[in-house]
Amino acid sequence: MSAAALLPPEPPLGTALGVVAGSGRPGPSRIVVPVGSAYVDVGTLAAAQGGPHPALLGEPTLDGLLAAGRPAWREVWEWLGDWLVDPERLAPYVLPQAGVVPVLPFTVADYTDFYACEQHAANASAIARAGGTVSENWYHLPVGYHGRAGTVQVSGTPVVRPHGQRGRGDLGPTKALDLEAELGFVLGGRRTGPVPIEEALDHVFGVVLLNDWSARDVQAWESRPLGPHLGKSFATSISAWVTPLDELAGAWVDPPARDPQPLPYLLGKADRGLDLTLEVRINGERISTPPAADLYWTPAQLVAHLTSGGAPVRPGDLLGSGTVSGPRRDQRGCLLEFTWGGRDEFALADGTTRHYLNDGDEVSIVGTAPRLDGGRISLGEVRGTVTP
Amino acid sequence: MSAAALLPPEPPLGTALGVVAGSGRPGPSRIVVPVGSAYVDVGTLAAAQGGPHPALLGEPTLDGLLAAGRPAWREVWEWLGDWLVDPERLAPYVLPQAGVVPVLPFTVADYTDFYACEQHAANASAIARAGGTVSENWYHLPVGYHGRAGTVQVSGTPVVRPHGQRGRGDLGPTKALDLEAELGFVLGGRRTGPVPIEEALDHVFGVVLLNDWSARDVQAWESRPLGPHLGKSFATSISAWVTPLDELAGAWVDPPARDPQPLPYLLGKADRGLDLTLEVRINGERISTPPAADLYWTPAQLVAHLTSGGAPVRPGDLLGSGTVSGPRRDQRGCLLEFTWGGRDEFALADGTTRHYLNDGDEVSIVGTAPRLDGGRISLGEVRGTVTP
Repeated sequence: MSAAALLPPEPPLGTALGVVAGSGRPGPSRIVVPVGSAYVDVGTLAAAQGGPHPALLGEPTLDGLLAAGRPAWREVWEWLGDWLVDPERLAPYVLPQAGVVPVLPFTVADYTDFYACEQHAANASAIARAGGTVSENWYHLPVGYHGRAGTVQVSGTPVVRPHGQRGRGDLGPTKALDLEAELGFVLGGRRTGPVPIEEALDHVFGVVLLNDWSARDVQAWESRPLGPHLGKSFATSISAWVTPLDELAGAWVDPPARDPQPLPYLLGKADRGLDLTLEVRINGERISTPPAADLYWTPAQLVAHLTSGGAPVRPGDLLGSGTVSGPRRDQRGCLLEFTWGGRDEFALADGTTRHYLNDGDEVSIVGTAPRLDGGRISLGEVRGTVTP
Repeated sequence: MSAAALLPPEPPLGTALGVVAGSGRPGPSRIVVPVGSAYVDVGTLAAAQGGPHPALLGEPTLDGLLAAGRPAWREVWEWLGDWLVDPERLAPYVLPQAGVVPVLPFTVADYTDFYACEQHAANASAIARAGGTVSENWYHLPVGYHGRAGTVQVSGTPVVRPHGQRGRGDLGPTKALDLEAELGFVLGGRRTGPVPIEEALDHVFGVVLLNDWSARDVQAWESRPLGPHLGKSFATSISAWVTPLDELAGAWVDPPARDPQPLPYLLGKADRGLDLTLEVRINGERISTPPAADLYWTPAQLVAHLTSGGAPVRPGDLLGSGTVSGPRRDQRGCLLEFTWGGRDEFALADGTTRHYLNDGDEVSIVGTAPRLDGGRISLGEVRGTVTP
């Protein structure tokens, strides 16, 4: 029996949107909703059945839908929900499976990675500087940096172990390849900043699971004084399926207590967290279950802060939460924390040990969310295998 | 007589490409070559006169041409050079001037800002930490970080003074708005990294002048530990005209001596600098003349390093050199250095004084390059006025 078989069954995927290529239908790729193991061609469904925005849904990416804004998103989500109640009616719109593959569902405009989890910030600070603590500014604003949009890739794409400078005069493949379990927020609409916090969620189309692969040795050497660069600019994987924010209505929770109180532009009714539970697997084996509910900085705060200086929202902007970690070791969302900077080895069920990832390792991050009716749904999985 | 009138006459603009809107010609915008104060419609010229790549040159942006790669770039540049020898022949292709405005000439894919000038790094380190020195890694690799592609704007666009956190609990418009005089390298072709240094310049279409506007108080407070973010994500201005690298054949110079010797992937015949002289003007008055010739890290090194971990080159990737500064005070390329972190006031000819930029200030950066024939050409100007 494989390790994966020991894991509990996952709840059904909620209503989620993605894009597949190779369907043989018009256009290079088609917008779909995954239903079980099938892909429903949403553009054709909308055109044939009088659905909303058939032109946008017939496009080869989600770009047009992302630009359209929240009213269009809600219409599409409500209409899809009605159809998914009775999946048998969808049979004429199911794509043949042969050769059909999920692709990156939207054009990433800017990718900004935050550092929103206090536990992760505390662990990373302690590891980077023995006994170091979280810097004061972290408690006043959502610290973040820009990542490389051009290296965002869809789940399933292999991750080539990057070469880089691992230290003084030391060039070669990274010896400290890490994963980072994150939430990704996919933005849409067009807006010149600043976006007030109460309108921030109008610009969040949905959520993806995100793995911000990191080369820790490269990152440590290059980061002074301008922050991470190539150590995080070789691959960032996102799930193929974007779960609309409307689908996560049952997941909102109050944010954690904060001291000091954030400035007013970061406070308001929209300042709430998402009670999503992540699960990190290596070669099918569960390593940790990071809880997103207590992320210190919430999605609305990330949008309000990012735009506060005047930066616009563009359709396809992608925000990462930063690594999600909980207080227990088996809730840590990256191996840097899990092995305390590579100090502590861990063993997999097959008897092999790791400090960081080996070539051939498959990393998968899955997640679930509570529904308003008390059940749970899954988010799209983000998965990648390390190649030499 | 205005201060500007005291400046020496500028050499003619070399062959450069840009895009204008409002011409009334087909498409939302047209690719043009500026000749004196006129804009020549290059797409119509190519179509009518059997020029190379008329379809690419008829596009509304440079995106298609950037994707086409160096052989196409060279054909276009050589053909344009032949036409510019006798500008009178271009009369039928000159656009009417009324309502015609330069726009951002290409879609910025990823914007990466480097920190390639040793003098700037030394000054910035000393200012940030009294007596601080350049970190060791700086001498081993071109330190850089990702900027925000969505806030890159064309010369002439006003710069709204950004609000932000200037320190603990202190929100408001920046009190330390700065300019940064940089070279920008516009990349093209498509390539999965790593790009060997000897092929790196095949991916540099051309050069723009770039002003990486910075809010120093915001930047100082937010940057721990992940580097600059919103302090540099409100506006980055680039010249409307891109000077093809082929036009700068007379500007190549040997790089400065380096100690320690960079790793082999950063060395080779392509490792040469560009002898461009910049000039920073505030309200028409010359403030400094930063020399780009002795930038420590050269364009080929920036491309080789950026792609060394596997990041692809995408058409429209934009690389900033980082602030260009020389050893003399009147060669410093940003006010942070010019006023030594805001310590030293400076006076303009009108008797007003500054530590950083005032509302209403117009900042212009111009530049010139030597030609193979001993003459000089100008690069496109980058200009912006600060608004409240």
